Amino acid sequence: MLKIGLLGAGRIGNVHAKAITSHAASKLVAVSDVNQEAAGKLATQYGAQASTSEAIIANSDIDAVLIATSTDTHSDLIEAATRAGKAVLCEKPVDLSLERALACRKIAAATGRPVMIGFNRRFDPNFAALKAAVDRGEIGRAELLSVTSFDPGPPPVSYIKVSGGLFRDMMIHDFDMASWIMGGLPQTVRAVASSIVDPEIGAAGDVDTAVVTLEYADGRIAVIKNSRRAVYGYDQRVELLGSEGLLSAGNMIENTVVKSTKDGVVSAKPEFFFLERYMRAYAAEWAAFVGAVTGSGVVPVSLDDGVNALALAEAATRSAKSGMAVEVATVM
Amino acid sequence: MLKIGLLGAGRIGNVHAKAITSHAASKLVAVSDVNQEAAGKLATQYGAQASTSEAIIANSDIDAVLIATSTDTHSDLIEAATRAGKAVLCEKPVDLSLERALACRKIAAATGRPVMIGFNRRFDPNFAALKAAVDRGEIGRAELLSVTSFDPGPPPVSYIKVSGGLFRDMMIHDFDMASWIMGGLPQTVRAVASSIVDPEIGAAGDVDTAVVTLEYADGRIAVIKNSRRAVYGYDQRVELLGSEGLLSAGNMIENTVVKSTKDGVVSAKPEFFFLERYMRAYAAEWAAFVGAVTGSGVVPVSLDDGVNALALAEAATRSAKSGMAVEVATVM
Amino acid sequence: MLKIGLLGAGRIGNVHAKAITSHAASKLVAVSDVNQEAAGKLATQYGAQASTSEAIIANSDIDAVLIATSTDTHSDLIEAATRAGKAVLCEKPVDLSLERALACRKIAAATGRPVMIGFNRRFDPNFAALKAAVDRGEIGRAELLSVTSFDPGPPPVSYIKVSGGLFRDMMIHDFDMASWIMGGLPQTVRAVASSIVDPEIGAAGDVDTAVVTLEYADGRIAVIKNSRRAVYGYDQRVELLGSEGLLSAGNMIENTVVKSTKDGVVSAKPEFFFLERYMRAYAAEWAAFVGAVTGSGVVPVSLDDGVNALALAEAATRSAKSGMAVEVATVM
Amino acid sequence: MLKIGLLGAGRIGNVHAKAITSHAASKLVAVSDVNQEAAGKLATQYGAQASTSEAIIANSDIDAVLIATSTDTHSDLIEAATRAGKAVLCEKPVDLSLERALACRKIAAATGRPVMIGFNRRFDPNFAALKAAVDRGEIGRAELLSVTSFDPGPPPVSYIKVSGGLFRDMMIHDFDMASWIMGGLPQTVRAVASSIVDPEIGAAGDVDTAVVTLEYADGRIAVIKNSRRAVYGYDQRVELLGSEGLLSAGNMIENTVVKSTKDGVVSAKPEFFFLERYMRAYAAEWAAFVGAVTGSGVVPVSLDDGVNALALAEAATRSAKSGMAVEVATVM
Repeated sequence: MLKIGLLGAGRIGNVHAKAITSHAASKLVAVSDVNQEAAGKLATQYGAQASTSEAIIANSDIDAVLIATSTDTHSDLIEAATRAGKAVLCEKPVDLSLERALACRKIAAATGRPVMIGFNRRFDPNFAALKAAVDRGEIGRAELLSVTSFDPGPPPVSYIKVSGGLFRDMMIHDFDMASWIMGGLPQTVRAVASSIVDPEIGAAGDVDTAVVTLEYADGRIAVIKNSRRAVYGYDQRVELLGSEGLLSAGNMIENTVVKSTKDGVVSAKPEFFFLERYMRAYAAEWAAFVGAVTGSGVVPVSLDDGVNALALAEAATRSAKSGMAVEVATVM
Repeated sequence: MLKIGLLGAGRIGNVHAKAITSHAASKLVAVSDVNQEAAGKLATQYGAQASTSEAIIANSDIDAVLIATSTDTHSDLIEAATRAGKAVLCEKPVDLSLERALACRKIAAATGRPVMIGFNRRFDPNFAALKAAVDRGEIGRAELLSVTSFDPGPPPVSYIKVSGGLFRDMMIHDFDMASWIMGGLPQTVRAVASSIVDPEIGAAGDVDTAVVTLEYADGRIAVIKNSRRAVYGYDQRVELLGSEGLLSAGNMIENTVVKSTKDGVVSAKPEFFFLERYMRAYAAEWAAFVGAVTGSGVVPVSLDDGVNALALAEAATRSAKSGMAVEVATVM
Repeated sequence: MLKIGLLGAGRIGNVHAKAITSHAASKLVAVSDVNQEAAGKLATQYGAQASTSEAIIANSDIDAVLIATSTDTHSDLIEAATRAGKAVLCEKPVDLSLERALACRKIAAATGRPVMIGFNRRFDPNFAALKAAVDRGEIGRAELLSVTSFDPGPPPVSYIKVSGGLFRDMMIHDFDMASWIMGGLPQTVRAVASSIVDPEIGAAGDVDTAVVTLEYADGRIAVIKNSRRAVYGYDQRVELLGSEGLLSAGNMIENTVVKSTKDGVVSAKPEFFFLERYMRAYAAEWAAFVGAVTGSGVVPVSLDDGVNALALAEAATRSAKSGMAVEVATVM
Repeated sequence: MLKIGLLGAGRIGNVHAKAITSHAASKLVAVSDVNQEAAGKLATQYGAQASTSEAIIANSDIDAVLIATSTDTHSDLIEAATRAGKAVLCEKPVDLSLERALACRKIAAATGRPVMIGFNRRFDPNFAALKAAVDRGEIGRAELLSVTSFDPGPPPVSYIKVSGGLFRDMMIHDFDMASWIMGGLPQTVRAVASSIVDPEIGAAGDVDTAVVTLEYADGRIAVIKNSRRAVYGYDQRVELLGSEGLLSAGNMIENTVVKSTKDGVVSAKPEFFFLERYMRAYAAEWAAFVGAVTGSGVVPVSLDDGVNALALAEAATRSAKSGMAVEVATVM
């Protein structure tokens, strides 16, 4: 039985607490949060202890920590936890600063402890089935990847200001998807972006709509589309054209009811947002972490993967600002 | 916190145990089974006590029982449990004998305790959304209902022999769906049936393929199609034609991946069988039971509903044998 | 070049005139109609002569006639035309009277001339693809057929009164579909029907909603659903369950545009009615007739097929009235 | 009755000949081709005269010409025909040289004769329905457009060499779609391209896979994806995200049959190539031309539109070569 300390009792901490306690081989023993009341409430709900991050990391009885705190604390906590011998599952992104993330990676690597980054989409049953099909060679060689990722609506501008920007906060998921599916980093990144959804977002120095193209050394191409607003719900799709066919993974919908009337044929919307769409993914992600920690020790999404996604976000941020293509090698 | 005794630790008992323990307002305290080892194992898994049906029913500390034992014990257990003051959730069917079920209903009704029958499909999010849309008048007056219900494969002939036959064992779900959606019992039942899937099923006195038409007093019509074999998976669909449109509720599929190659466009199969398809329904069913017992005391699927479905199964069984239409009033 | 006389210049006559003139190997030379103005107008449009049925049939320069007149004239015209040596394509149904149709068949058969009945649905690319897949054994042995056939709205009651009733006028198409797909006639017919769409239709002695089950000697079952009103358009679907899978042929839709908004996901309706849905089928039907007449002489939909469909309509009419199952052998 | 001369009797000339002769208000009177035999054959089939381009243009009895010759003759023929007072429908592209096209536009404009460019996709019922929905404001303000356009397979390298390259030959359709849907030209074009499908195409100086992003002055973005190879058929889709929803127009499929077996659920492929997919579009395009010429004189796709699409192709070609963003204003 893996004993788990959960750092962070916010919205995503709650999701992880449920996954931890639902798994037969893991047990939630302690919860911390800067908001002690939140930590206490979540701990009580699942029969764990409220604690502090420092105490959890220092507790030799705890095997692994799940880091679901604010992004600016991720690198410090990864370093502290791995130095204390813990296995770590850390929410994305590793950091907003690529430089800081690279330093963190060096320190964590030196400890030899497994660090997994919470790119939940890899564990979505639809994307996982697509990836498995590609890897089985079902469409021959991959040639052109398209990732569509639209949020149902923009977050508050106050959040935007501390988010690190669309590329580091939102598209980072899609950068990881691209690297995962294409099996490596692209050579060049080109970004086009605007704040057409909400000028306030532009005034805050960020964008809300973006298209990024990734050019791989062997001629493969990927394109990622992001928008902060799709009023019909969370739109999360992937298409991959290969030499022998096309694979596409579509949205999951709220229900399968279709209504046909004189006004048209109406079906249900996509699952509203990530908590609905990726409910199953969070459970599978946690199971993969537990399996890796208790098994091979090799996690399916490494700290390297987290750093790589951040590097692409950095390149895209620069490209959107300069209007120029950015070589990935120049940012790392 | 509702304290629950679970009678029956077989496949469906396991499903219910998970629903009971996952619900914030219910607690599994005891489990019984004719196979004591099974009861013990399930009890241990969820921190409950292994016990006997008699002891659970006699235990005044237990608020409600979930009956998931073999069908021939349902009526006796419903009677005993309600007499002991328990609320009851009983798996379908109430009984294989309509006469016995009617007697059971009388006794249970006299106790005033809530008895809910486990017609899980009413809690499927797709069928529930269809029902809600009908009730909101979205397609005007209902006129013609179609229920498609195919199992992935036939059960062993040994099971067929004690099952009560396709109409009481399998189509009973669809009879309840029809009564639920159409809001009452039909006047007449006509059944056509054969054992084309497996002659052994015919030799055992049962059928494996059947079409039943239900004629309502006001001219509405329903048709139910059953087959014991759909090799592509569990096929569970409903269509309702109304004066202002059509509502259809389709299958849930394993994933949303679509592969297009020179050989065609391939998508995923329906969820394989009831444990997959109705996973969410079992949780919603339990929540509805807990809500009813701790609230109004009025359950959403009553013992009357269970008896009514059995009456339609009885009528269909007679019609398939005689080749004649059967008036529902003549069987009750 | 096959020289064609067209008997009947109404709505369906116009459709056929277009098919005849668009085909490279047929030429429309004469058109007749009880409404001489209509005949004249249609003849002029396509460079043909306006004439009378008698003159067309007597004209030894004409190779084949297409009968698109009112149903009560079909048998007489088939007899006259075949006796005059013409090949015939006659609209459905052969007659409203099964007895009369049987007599007509005898006379036509004696001439040895090819007579094809215009069951357009066999030439629909979707149904034709389904039939081809069954015949290739793609789903093993057929076991359970479902035909859904809803019109967008009921015809005027004045038409209902002379139509021969829903079974002979509308469901006759579906009876032919069942015989075509299942490869022969059923043993028994059971019909349930009502006039729930429009009581005026009931007052006129007809029904507007019906479900018919067909029982085959080997245990296969077919079910046909008809409604005179589906406000969302012409609903024409077929499903066939077999020992190794399911084939379904769905509607053709007006366009592929899908609109997703906060109110749901809206797609286009089915093609509105038979002229839209079966546009391509009419051309393929005509090509098949020309091919048969100029080739083997064996038409793909024979007068026998027309008589068989009428026999099933007769049996269904009797069953709906009596409430009893009707053996097909007893009506022929 | 509009009298038409058809210049070019190749594959696309044959398509247009059928559209011309099927239209009630146009008549094909003459056909020319560098291959006189081809011209003769096509003329005979439709009762027209074989002729030469010069004679057709000089013939004062001909009202309009349809130019379906090789691209290098388009500008000359547009100039000659408009100077001779003809209305013109010319296949895309106007020319491979933007400079030449601009000169042609000046000359044609001076004649005041209507010149329409054959961007067939605007007349596809699906794309036309999407455009109409945008224009009705059904998804609010357009923000992000995606055009997917994959051919089933690459043309011979011999064709590639004279084609002007993927951007002028293939993506030019998509550039026109973008300008049509977004209502004007973008400010900046960025192209990423490779010859991953076939290195021989790369050796011939062209690309076979490309992603182009278009940035509009107001912050809107469009992205176009092209591949010369989609082995499952012609893949032609459009998606438009707006402030109030998403519109998507999908492929038309060969038929609606779906087969479900233990191996999965298989449906039909997209219509194979442009002759199948755009069959209805060609008829609608011709009808629009006839309507414009006999009506307002204002064609729905102008020579300006043709020049604009070519300008975007020019910009994309430069961007793919230089790796830099190209301002559209700099190429015109």
